[in-house]
Amino acid sequence: MKYEYLTNTPLDEAVKVFLSSLKKAGMKSKTEEIDVRHSLGRVSACAVYAKRCSPHYCASAMDGVALKAEITFGANEATPVTLSSSDYIPVDTGDELPQGCDSVVMIENVIEQGGGKISLYSPAVPWQNVRQIGEDICMGDMIIPSFTKITPSVIGALLAGGVFTAQVIKKPVFAIIPTGDEIVAAEQELSGGDIPEFNSAIFSAMLEEWGALTVIYPIVSDRRDCIEAAIKKAALECDGIIVIAGSSAGREDYTFSALENVGTAVLHGIAIKPGKPAILGNVGSAPFIGIPGYPVSGIIVMEEIVRPVVSILTCLPGENAEVVRAKVSRKINSSLKYREYIRTRLCIVEKSTVAVPMNRGAGIVTGFAKASGIITVAQDSEGVEEGGSTQVRLLRPLSEIESSVCVIGSHDPILDEISDLLKRRHLNLNVVSAHVGSMGGIMALVRKEAHLCGIHLLDESDGVYNISYIKKYFPQGGVVLIRGVGRLQGIMVGQGNPKKIAGLKDIAQRKLSYINRQKGSGTRILLDYLLKTSEISSDDICGYLREEYTHTGVAAIIAKGSADAGLGIYSAARIYDLGFIPLWNEEYDFLVSESALEQENVKRFLEILKSDELKQRLEKMGGYTFNGIGRIKNLEA
Amino acid sequence: MKYEYLTNTPLDEAVKVFLSSLKKAGMKSKTEEIDVRHSLGRVSACAVYAKRCSPHYCASAMDGVALKAEITFGANEATPVTLSSSDYIPVDTGDELPQGCDSVVMIENVIEQGGGKISLYSPAVPWQNVRQIGEDICMGDMIIPSFTKITPSVIGALLAGGVFTAQVIKKPVFAIIPTGDEIVAAEQELSGGDIPEFNSAIFSAMLEEWGALTVIYPIVSDRRDCIEAAIKKAALECDGIIVIAGSSAGREDYTFSALENVGTAVLHGIAIKPGKPAILGNVGSAPFIGIPGYPVSGIIVMEEIVRPVVSILTCLPGENAEVVRAKVSRKINSSLKYREYIRTRLCIVEKSTVAVPMNRGAGIVTGFAKASGIITVAQDSEGVEEGGSTQVRLLRPLSEIESSVCVIGSHDPILDEISDLLKRRHLNLNVVSAHVGSMGGIMALVRKEAHLCGIHLLDESDGVYNISYIKKYFPQGGVVLIRGVGRLQGIMVGQGNPKKIAGLKDIAQRKLSYINRQKGSGTRILLDYLLKTSEISSDDICGYLREEYTHTGVAAIIAKGSADAGLGIYSAARIYDLGFIPLWNEEYDFLVSESALEQENVKRFLEILKSDELKQRLEKMGGYTFNGIGRIKNLEA
Repeated sequence: MKYEYLTNTPLDEAVKVFLSSLKKAGMKSKTEEIDVRHSLGRVSACAVYAKRCSPHYCASAMDGVALKAEITFGANEATPVTLSSSDYIPVDTGDELPQGCDSVVMIENVIEQGGGKISLYSPAVPWQNVRQIGEDICMGDMIIPSFTKITPSVIGALLAGGVFTAQVIKKPVFAIIPTGDEIVAAEQELSGGDIPEFNSAIFSAMLEEWGALTVIYPIVSDRRDCIEAAIKKAALECDGIIVIAGSSAGREDYTFSALENVGTAVLHGIAIKPGKPAILGNVGSAPFIGIPGYPVSGIIVMEEIVRPVVSILTCLPGENAEVVRAKVSRKINSSLKYREYIRTRLCIVEKSTVAVPMNRGAGIVTGFAKASGIITVAQDSEGVEEGGSTQVRLLRPLSEIESSVCVIGSHDPILDEISDLLKRRHLNLNVVSAHVGSMGGIMALVRKEAHLCGIHLLDESDGVYNISYIKKYFPQGGVVLIRGVGRLQGIMVGQGNPKKIAGLKDIAQRKLSYINRQKGSGTRILLDYLLKTSEISSDDICGYLREEYTHTGVAAIIAKGSADAGLGIYSAARIYDLGFIPLWNEEYDFLVSESALEQENVKRFLEILKSDELKQRLEKMGGYTFNGIGRIKNLEA
Repeated sequence: MKYEYLTNTPLDEAVKVFLSSLKKAGMKSKTEEIDVRHSLGRVSACAVYAKRCSPHYCASAMDGVALKAEITFGANEATPVTLSSSDYIPVDTGDELPQGCDSVVMIENVIEQGGGKISLYSPAVPWQNVRQIGEDICMGDMIIPSFTKITPSVIGALLAGGVFTAQVIKKPVFAIIPTGDEIVAAEQELSGGDIPEFNSAIFSAMLEEWGALTVIYPIVSDRRDCIEAAIKKAALECDGIIVIAGSSAGREDYTFSALENVGTAVLHGIAIKPGKPAILGNVGSAPFIGIPGYPVSGIIVMEEIVRPVVSILTCLPGENAEVVRAKVSRKINSSLKYREYIRTRLCIVEKSTVAVPMNRGAGIVTGFAKASGIITVAQDSEGVEEGGSTQVRLLRPLSEIESSVCVIGSHDPILDEISDLLKRRHLNLNVVSAHVGSMGGIMALVRKEAHLCGIHLLDESDGVYNISYIKKYFPQGGVVLIRGVGRLQGIMVGQGNPKKIAGLKDIAQRKLSYINRQKGSGTRILLDYLLKTSEISSDDICGYLREEYTHTGVAAIIAKGSADAGLGIYSAARIYDLGFIPLWNEEYDFLVSESALEQENVKRFLEILKSDELKQRLEKMGGYTFNGIGRIKNLEA
């Protein structure tokens, strides 16, 4: 049942060993000749020299008259030189300088006297306003050296220099081979245990971004001979081979031994997390990379190991991603055993850049889609203390991060709807949101990790929402509470309420299975309040310890029959077509720091909150009310 | 003969007026539905919601055994819980959690006892090692809002969420119409006065980079009816229209009046330099931009005016180019009448970023291909003083600028050959070179604007090269002179020496036309020395005032018959198959600042100087010798 990785090689060493083994195996970039007009983004395979001069003749640089400068010598304001029509030739910009002329007087300085006569009040300097042959580029001059990425202006320079086809680096073609018995095409109808295959699409897109082409092969089942056959075929057809292992035990073992049979295995097991089970080797001169099946692990291995290989084959240095320094919002531990990669949100609060590390789950592909950057914790590092400073490699342009509105706190679809409406109205604005529950939101605002937070915190003592919490956590003030929506909370149950659940008491007494929200969420606090007022012990709720982080998460589990009931909002129940027992009308408000309230992007966010478009969308979703939405709540009321 | 622009509208106002007129004209982005797997880099047309949960079942997150946690409660190191095979089910990562189980114990913590029995030394916590339904994404959750650029991980998130086709913004199609009687296809054989058309290729590549498509139309001659017909056709077939005017007088007038006849003209004449004669308008809902014919002017108008239009049609905010602060190496004047754009080289010397402004010529497309950044001088600015600080918008990644070796000074093809060899050996290194003559190079090193300079300066008093100049300009030392190449200087004359030129005296006496090098160049200094020793007055050299900046420039002018003779190096004469009268063997050396000598990139540069590959290349070119190449010259010898 056990499975051990062969090595735990540090990343830098692994890449060095791998690249040098590939060099020995004869891995090389290829070249091809293409039309310069279609060479944007391609890379020159050799130095390119101009085949002609540009301009290829002496050209007038102005509209005016061409003449021999010496006939104008001595002209001045008092004694102009007057010329007859045989002394000069009118020229337009770009015209060839006529024989015998050595300069051009611009039309603004030519005074027409009639009968073809003109006067000049200053002398011409020889070669003035003349573009010399080769002013731009001369035949024989190097236009670009080898391995230069072709930009729009390089295309112009090549065509100007009479170069119409160019030897460029051929795009390397990578085979991507997904493997695994439980792996099915993402587009297929899924049964329990089926794992949809979409890693190939992610990796293919990454390779495309790096200047490579890809061929995605059919999914290969967990048999060594099948994997061997697929690798052999790919080695014939492509310049590099990527095998995506499934996720079940020992899978990498098949891949590794298959590789050993048809090529050379160089390394198995890299000291990175996620991404450890990577396999490196070659089949002939083609690089081979076995990539772990969890998408996040795979993305890291692609970035750290495949990219340097692609860089050699494309002759393009990997562009260094932008790096910023940021304060980390919570302690980052280090395993000491691995170099670790932690996706993070970035938020600029009061001019300080804060990194809010995200869930480390290797299966969470949406995490990558939403992250702003990656923190790398070195293998020999002790991690980073809360509030400590660290480098963050950006996954998005800095300008996007600077203009983002950061909302952390309770989950409600309203956040996504505002995000969409904001983007539609202001192309350059974004919402970065994280669902950490109402209390998590308040703490994020205390720690200056966000601009706003969404909260619905019931004070059990007086039944008033939010205000007492704010007074407790912001005794000095500095925050403003903006009225959000009223929303209907209730018990979500299966479609048509198959178990005829009447209420919380019923769930406790009949030991029905419950799915809870995480600690610190407003919905959890509401449950605890409702249990207390109904005199139900949480021990009697089966599943009280089973936690989800969003309303839709709870709804999904009930819809699949994995739990019988859970507390949540009406709109989530509607999406999943669930039964719903209304219990409570709560106030979901936005807490904003006073400093953020001055920011343009936050102002725009609050405008959307008050907009009719948002109201219309929420009405469609159901369960919301809008009394005073967007107005400031009086904390003393 | 005169021609006046209608307006001199400040750029910001022009863009504002133009965009608002396009909005009124009904310009809008279009949408289309495409396969998510082919959506990399596309832009979502609306918010996209997940259609399924991922994972869609409760999944084991580990290899191990699934069980009901409560049967393990109480286990500890002293009293393990032992289970029989009916109490647990072995599971692999990704397997569906079996009915009745609520947790997974990882295989490393399972002690097999034989006969299917296992022992656990710690209790399982309910729901440990279980990936809940929707852990990654839940049905109904928004995956991306509108107008989001689709990245590899977004493709993964969409497929995970069961979204296989996406509504994206359709790429707008721009018509590019070149005009002008003197304009011919770049690929055509050129006669004097023909202007090769390559602007369309530059603009098309820029539009492609911004996410648009293009159709390049045939060149239209200078007739209003032809231009009108072309615009009408383009308006039917495309979403936007770009007309490239030729460069002769009144051209914009045809374009402007043609536009007025078939559409709406909004503005003509923008207060930018280069780029002033731009024409803005619309034909129906299609934006129309008349772009001046000089490539540099065109690129500026594309960047400043067309790009914001494309951004609206693609729903992609233009990424803000990176900006750095740099010290300008010489005074930048402002016209006060225009916003000016000045291409610049950037060089990091002793940790300070120096901007060295380039030739302002609007026809110099190679300038754009070689520039590292652009300085914008605001219309109301007084310019920038020498040594003053200014912002530079980067045209290349900062990492490329940081790793560049900056060589300023005398022109020799050796610089380009080293640049190519360096790139081939070290993908991440580049040479940035500028040909400003030997004295210009020395001054650049004095002002700390470069790492090295190439010089060949003859001391007339003792016939020794370079050393006395270094002593004069670097009295405190701080520089090292590296031996470069010996090279043969001589008089370049037409192929086969058709005018039977015998030497400089001959040129003076027979009043033959000469093409000179610029002041401060080593070759100019050599000419002056030779004239003096031959007792020839420079007044007797016809063309003494006609200056070129490179050896190939001089050779090109002689090859075209535009001058009879000029001083230059043998290799340049060879390229143009010219006659050559050898006169002098000179020493072309490299002066390096001591601080630069410590830099890795400069060390690599000097390694190439000593390499056999370089020697082989120069031998092929001819006229070079290599005694002691790459060794330090003793300044006291």
